[in-house]
Amino acid sequence: MIQCPRGTRDFLPDEMEKRRFYENKLRDTAKIFGFREIETPIFEEAELFILRSGPNVLKELYAFKDKGDRDIALRPEMTAPAIRMFVNGMSNDPKPVKIFYFGQCFRYERPQSGRYREFFQFGAELIGKAAPESDAEVIGMAASMIKSLGLKDYKIRIGHIGVLRQRISDAGVPAERAAEVLQKLDKKLYDEARPLLESMNVPGDSIDDIFSLTETVGGTEVLERIPGEAGDYLKQVTGYLSAMGIEDIEIDLGVVRGLDYYTGMVFEAEAPALGAEKQICGGGSYTLSELFGGEKVFSTGFAIGFDRILLAMEKEGIKYDPAGPDAYVIPVDDGLRLKAAGIAALLRRSGVSADIDLMGRKMGKALKHASSVRAKYAIIIGKEEAGSGSVTVRDMNTGEQRTVGDGELADFIKNS
Amino acid sequence: MIQCPRGTRDFLPDEMEKRRFYENKLRDTAKIFGFREIETPIFEEAELFILRSGPNVLKELYAFKDKGDRDIALRPEMTAPAIRMFVNGMSNDPKPVKIFYFGQCFRYERPQSGRYREFFQFGAELIGKAAPESDAEVIGMAASMIKSLGLKDYKIRIGHIGVLRQRISDAGVPAERAAEVLQKLDKKLYDEARPLLESMNVPGDSIDDIFSLTETVGGTEVLERIPGEAGDYLKQVTGYLSAMGIEDIEIDLGVVRGLDYYTGMVFEAEAPALGAEKQICGGGSYTLSELFGGEKVFSTGFAIGFDRILLAMEKEGIKYDPAGPDAYVIPVDDGLRLKAAGIAALLRRSGVSADIDLMGRKMGKALKHASSVRAKYAIIIGKEEAGSGSVTVRDMNTGEQRTVGDGELADFIKNS
Repeated sequence: MIQCPRGTRDFLPDEMEKRRFYENKLRDTAKIFGFREIETPIFEEAELFILRSGPNVLKELYAFKDKGDRDIALRPEMTAPAIRMFVNGMSNDPKPVKIFYFGQCFRYERPQSGRYREFFQFGAELIGKAAPESDAEVIGMAASMIKSLGLKDYKIRIGHIGVLRQRISDAGVPAERAAEVLQKLDKKLYDEARPLLESMNVPGDSIDDIFSLTETVGGTEVLERIPGEAGDYLKQVTGYLSAMGIEDIEIDLGVVRGLDYYTGMVFEAEAPALGAEKQICGGGSYTLSELFGGEKVFSTGFAIGFDRILLAMEKEGIKYDPAGPDAYVIPVDDGLRLKAAGIAALLRRSGVSADIDLMGRKMGKALKHASSVRAKYAIIIGKEEAGSGSVTVRDMNTGEQRTVGDGELADFIKNS
Repeated sequence: MIQCPRGTRDFLPDEMEKRRFYENKLRDTAKIFGFREIETPIFEEAELFILRSGPNVLKELYAFKDKGDRDIALRPEMTAPAIRMFVNGMSNDPKPVKIFYFGQCFRYERPQSGRYREFFQFGAELIGKAAPESDAEVIGMAASMIKSLGLKDYKIRIGHIGVLRQRISDAGVPAERAAEVLQKLDKKLYDEARPLLESMNVPGDSIDDIFSLTETVGGTEVLERIPGEAGDYLKQVTGYLSAMGIEDIEIDLGVVRGLDYYTGMVFEAEAPALGAEKQICGGGSYTLSELFGGEKVFSTGFAIGFDRILLAMEKEGIKYDPAGPDAYVIPVDDGLRLKAAGIAALLRRSGVSADIDLMGRKMGKALKHASSVRAKYAIIIGKEEAGSGSVTVRDMNTGEQRTVGDGELADFIKNS
């Protein structure tokens, strides 16, 4: 038997219905915030992702040559494609451009709990403005999205990469080596960061100072301890969030994010129930457009790991009940199959979802099947009733039966 | 500037909103027919598509080796993945299994009008039954889907591959060469089919006979001219369709479909406005599961070319009007920006979609922007009103303005 490729999944009907339901919750929230959906191709020129993330990204890419000898890669994320699209087709639109997207991304890595080679991301970008107010708009939307899914146990942490960059630069780290240091700090690898910083001749007390900065964590009161513009900036961000009714956030200057292109505010959301792979959302303000041939434009965005947030919801015991069709039509014998097809068609034309027995099951088994597909009503087509233009409607919950005229059937089901 | 790869497209917000709207129309219709959505990976083992379509398919595949040296291909269609999924995970489910799917498919071919390298298909499979009634159920759903999009000028043609296969076999064509002949007949290449048949020693009058069979076209009355079981079968199919209120179909024994695996009824829908590339839907009854390691199971399915049907709708002048947010919030000066953020949050929590001025535009320009994003109301946050807990609501259509209390604002907009 051929299986789906390692690290990919099939979604069967119950699972798929649940996923679409929550995907649409996220979509609805984005629309409520005035963001609009876009879609970009599943693959891009590999160069796009190298420009964004550096050549190291190639190791994890599904990259290949197409038949025209172009270097192509399945997208590992959607910020770069979204900004490429903005540069190509939306750069003259009134600002800010507020867009969101949902779809598959691909990373060749070892599959593990909550990590797949084909995974699903929901993301949003607010392009053309970097200010406390627009940052708060984006964080506020991320928070509303997570809340809209019903997740209870999560934490949003806001930091500022600018503070740390400044401190590292002040300590004497050359600009071209800052990324190395930030990567260690991002993973809290202090044991590796210290010799690295020492090798750059950073004095011991400056190193302690950098480490303690990354451990500046707490409520908005810790903002008093954050020096200069960045502290003021984050105070304004949290002020806007507070005006929006969003208070459950934490300040954490240890939020570094992996990537070079973040410029100021950065944020993450995590669901502790997920253990080691607990991050469900990450974002911040950045500039990318100039790398793709556009003008430099400040943006703020984030992505939600859809698979991982669903896993967190599962761990919290959030249940989704798949719906069945409104009606399941059963002819009592083969002579009534045409009439049954007609009744199903009549219901469907009226917007009533209707399944129909196609296997010629006997009544008992047909009712059992109606129940297994979770139909609300069984519509039984009997000979006598057919003669008088009516059918028997059986409430699948109560077992109650009544005779309803063909012409009233759709309304009866819709209004019940 | 990096562009999206040749033959692929970016969908900007207006276009995307339209596509999602019509995608959901198709999805709703499938649900009304008791079909349920599934999803399979974007790529599969290349072998899957070779088993379905023969090694020739490799020419058109985006095929590559992954880092684990597996032969992988982006899916060129979704019937094979759906049946693979059925074999792996649904083969013990009660029959029939009724599933549908929507997503990207990929074919490396020369891009042209309505043909892309990344294209979108909507498809459905009814698995576990092959009977006139279940075939009619599937054709009926395809017809309802096309109708649900508002397309007027289209034609559904139903044929039966079994009749033609039988006639070809009776004429002395060896079974293993039937596909060659069918391919020529599918494309109406009679000039090439004749010498081919002659080379197989098929007598001239048998050839004429085969050709005339493929030109058996017309209303249900031509079913009288179709011999044997196949004629009876199609009579029953059209009988069911008629009971379902679907009369606008044509019988056409020239519907051959490209592929070997069809076993009986085949059908196509075309939109003449599209010219040479006019086919918008194709399907039929088939068996595939046994090729993928499962038991032989009869199925009927179809796929709709989503890009092409949208193109047909465009040619018919069907317009989609994108919607804007319910509200656009504008503070009259910077001192009111926090209040504005609070009002936007209040609206959003009540389910009212709200955008907000983030660029600090002056009132005139802000109203112009509100209009360009198609907001229904501008919510103007003024100093005096803010003092008394109210805002000014401007109807963007009529220009009419009124003062509304903060607490009544969401209801006012929802009920207007």
